[in-house]
Amino acid sequence: MNEVSKISPTLLLEGLRAIVGEKACIEVASDMQPFTTDYRKLYHGKALAVVLPASTEQVSAVLALCFAHNVPVVPQGGNTSLMGGAVPDAAGDAVVLNLRRMNQVQEIDVINDTMTLQAGVTLQAARAAAEEAGRLFPLRIGSEGSCQIGGNLSTNAGGTAVLRYGNMRDLTLGIEAVLPDGRIYSSLRGLRKDNTGYDLKQLFIGSEGTLGIITAAVLKLMPLPSASAVAWIAVKDPHAAVELLTEAKRAAGQAVTAFELISGPALALVLESMPQWSAPLPSAHDWMVLIELTSGGDAEGLDATLMSILEQGMERGLVTDAAIAASLADARAFWQLREEISDAQTREGGSIKCDISIPLSKIADFIAEASKQVLALAPDARMVIYGHMGDGNVHFNPLRPKGAPAAAFLAENYARVSHTVDGLATRQNGSISAEHGIGVAKRDDLLLCKSPVELELMWQIKRALDPTNLLNPAKVLPLPTPAP
Amino acid sequence: MNEVSKISPTLLLEGLRAIVGEKACIEVASDMQPFTTDYRKLYHGKALAVVLPASTEQVSAVLALCFAHNVPVVPQGGNTSLMGGAVPDAAGDAVVLNLRRMNQVQEIDVINDTMTLQAGVTLQAARAAAEEAGRLFPLRIGSEGSCQIGGNLSTNAGGTAVLRYGNMRDLTLGIEAVLPDGRIYSSLRGLRKDNTGYDLKQLFIGSEGTLGIITAAVLKLMPLPSASAVAWIAVKDPHAAVELLTEAKRAAGQAVTAFELISGPALALVLESMPQWSAPLPSAHDWMVLIELTSGGDAEGLDATLMSILEQGMERGLVTDAAIAASLADARAFWQLREEISDAQTREGGSIKCDISIPLSKIADFIAEASKQVLALAPDARMVIYGHMGDGNVHFNPLRPKGAPAAAFLAENYARVSHTVDGLATRQNGSISAEHGIGVAKRDDLLLCKSPVELELMWQIKRALDPTNLLNPAKVLPLPTPAP
Repeated sequence: MNEVSKISPTLLLEGLRAIVGEKACIEVASDMQPFTTDYRKLYHGKALAVVLPASTEQVSAVLALCFAHNVPVVPQGGNTSLMGGAVPDAAGDAVVLNLRRMNQVQEIDVINDTMTLQAGVTLQAARAAAEEAGRLFPLRIGSEGSCQIGGNLSTNAGGTAVLRYGNMRDLTLGIEAVLPDGRIYSSLRGLRKDNTGYDLKQLFIGSEGTLGIITAAVLKLMPLPSASAVAWIAVKDPHAAVELLTEAKRAAGQAVTAFELISGPALALVLESMPQWSAPLPSAHDWMVLIELTSGGDAEGLDATLMSILEQGMERGLVTDAAIAASLADARAFWQLREEISDAQTREGGSIKCDISIPLSKIADFIAEASKQVLALAPDARMVIYGHMGDGNVHFNPLRPKGAPAAAFLAENYARVSHTVDGLATRQNGSISAEHGIGVAKRDDLLLCKSPVELELMWQIKRALDPTNLLNPAKVLPLPTPAP
Repeated sequence: MNEVSKISPTLLLEGLRAIVGEKACIEVASDMQPFTTDYRKLYHGKALAVVLPASTEQVSAVLALCFAHNVPVVPQGGNTSLMGGAVPDAAGDAVVLNLRRMNQVQEIDVINDTMTLQAGVTLQAARAAAEEAGRLFPLRIGSEGSCQIGGNLSTNAGGTAVLRYGNMRDLTLGIEAVLPDGRIYSSLRGLRKDNTGYDLKQLFIGSEGTLGIITAAVLKLMPLPSASAVAWIAVKDPHAAVELLTEAKRAAGQAVTAFELISGPALALVLESMPQWSAPLPSAHDWMVLIELTSGGDAEGLDATLMSILEQGMERGLVTDAAIAASLADARAFWQLREEISDAQTREGGSIKCDISIPLSKIADFIAEASKQVLALAPDARMVIYGHMGDGNVHFNPLRPKGAPAAAFLAENYARVSHTVDGLATRQNGSISAEHGIGVAKRDDLLLCKSPVELELMWQIKRALDPTNLLNPAKVLPLPTPAP
């Protein structure tokens, strides 16, 4: 433990102002509110201050000051966590450190195919900068306009192109991070091979700001695809979707960029709330797939490959109908339907959010069994099931029956339904949080799905890097804190 | 620190025999010799015993016993480390734990595209098992017949297909590892997305057996490519090679599977020692490239792409000559020339091995500058420079002049040449061990290329997971051990 010197809030605030400047130190509760309330408006915390440092050195100085006085620090990027991972608790003794002023793309190296940038760059800005340089940065998630690279790294973000390009972890060559005591770690080297000791960056990626604050990164860039082919496909059932995916991988290999499953109720929800949008297929279906192929080759070849996948699917009775995007506008419209599912649920008062992954060979059975168990608990729930089936990942989100009041439905069902679904996933060697992370919302659920050894190891690492538990406390690691 | 109960070697050996069986506990020095001497015959260690456990439970019991009595354990796979990473030191107080009896491929899931296997499976056997199931396991390194999956994981092996498929780390979904005290950690889940807490497997991958002993893994499988196109290309110089690579990535995207640079002296060395083999091109060249494209499409399309890359290269003056493999036999012959470079050096008494990576945008300048500096020290050295330029990785291996005695050349030049080359790489933000790891050979060089914070973090992790420093002691982490 560090020796704690007591400091009054007044003196601490003075110190913070001296580091980041007056304007970048927010101290009035109402001004802090956007930083202390989470994206889903489920967690309403308080803070001593919100600081907006402009450089790694300022982040380092803030952490050193807080470390010296035992003040908790909550790192924050775009504040788009679905798990309450980026806001402080109600105690009001923490400093929120938001990285949005650190928003410079520092270098794009088109020969090395890398991009070096600060943690506060939004994903959208990062993608745009890469594209301007004739390259693709492939991470693609719904919140790209708000979420920041630092948050993408801290949560190992996934999204709709993981099937082809991997998670954020796979796209990262190096990071810079500030440790709880203010020391700066850097591996901003842009190397694709570097076996010189422990790969320390892996500790900070996906640990949700509990071990260090990521301030910059070197990311991989890819060739911009020259062709894409997109189709909205009605399939017999999730088993047929899995078979179709296997066929697509056989026929198109790594060109299969996205393979999203969409349940009938998920699409219906979007179409009801967006009456001006058209359905992609003339009739309603229980299960659909949105597939995207991309390549650096010619469009005709890719279209032919997509067509042959669909023909195979029809012949084998997997596919019952399909619409191929005839233009970029069509493709965008298909994707818009898919992307809107999330907000459409929010407009209905919110669903019971389960973010499951399972080996692909078991996912169809999982969907059937989990649906059966959920409908036994909540008979008329709308089964909003969708997501990245290509990665074995579905968002399994039961929604209140039409007409039923949202609050009562959620109060009655949230805990029991999510425990049912998560429990089933755990027993099948699946994950209860494929891409959303743990934050505070799923924190204590780790006790149900992780082995004692896994939990012990997590604490061993946490204690080694943050011995006084100051960085994003009470996130990720289940409470109570075990004795060392 | 654990409380140490003294144990006599006799009692320890009795305990080890009781765990693994008499036949699997080797105690006679001459029988141990293949396990205590490294692949390059540079390190000649001693051991109390060599144990060959047959199961994870046996590994766990061996570690628990050794932990209770403070006995160091050196994990070993195929013993093909180039860095002395898999053999004990001369003290003779350690137990070598070799995993070769744990050689079962436990499951291949062709829907999930995963393979679950024990750590002692050789890379060759793993690739063969995948191929039999109609899938590709893409790791490809020269020692595949001997090296084991556990060693590949512990050293984050690279090789000739990283450009397309990534390092061993990128190919791994889960592992099982035994901790220093015998506890068993497992993440054998086969999930492509799982953000439930710290990604603990990353700690064990690439840490060379200093934090835990990997006993099993779930690896990613890929579609078997249906077409490949291979060419041996003479290029103007390394700058031209980098430009040609950029053109190849533009034209062929992810189909570019391997892009190997080969210097004139590297090829000459192979042809001299293998007079029955033919040169791929009619005349000698200073710099050559071996390129391989693979795809799931048709061979004609891929051939056309390769041809257009070569035509572009010729037009732009990058390529001076090229031979396209007209058959699988041709392609194999090209690869054989490339693979033989390593053994050809050994037959000449060994070279000064530097394994450098540098951002691709700087690698050509690096080769020029490093060559100049090395030739100033060792004027007639043969510049055997070759390797995975597509990853920014070259093996930069100056070899004694023809006729000069090997031992004298190495004694005079090894330290000063490797420090010159490594120093230049370090100053350019490169790596002094792109894929070979650290082991004992490069251990103290980390003091020259890592920041104090990186070294402190490595020790923080080591102490957290192996507080009594029993697993592969004196490897990877530079000596002296700092005070906690």
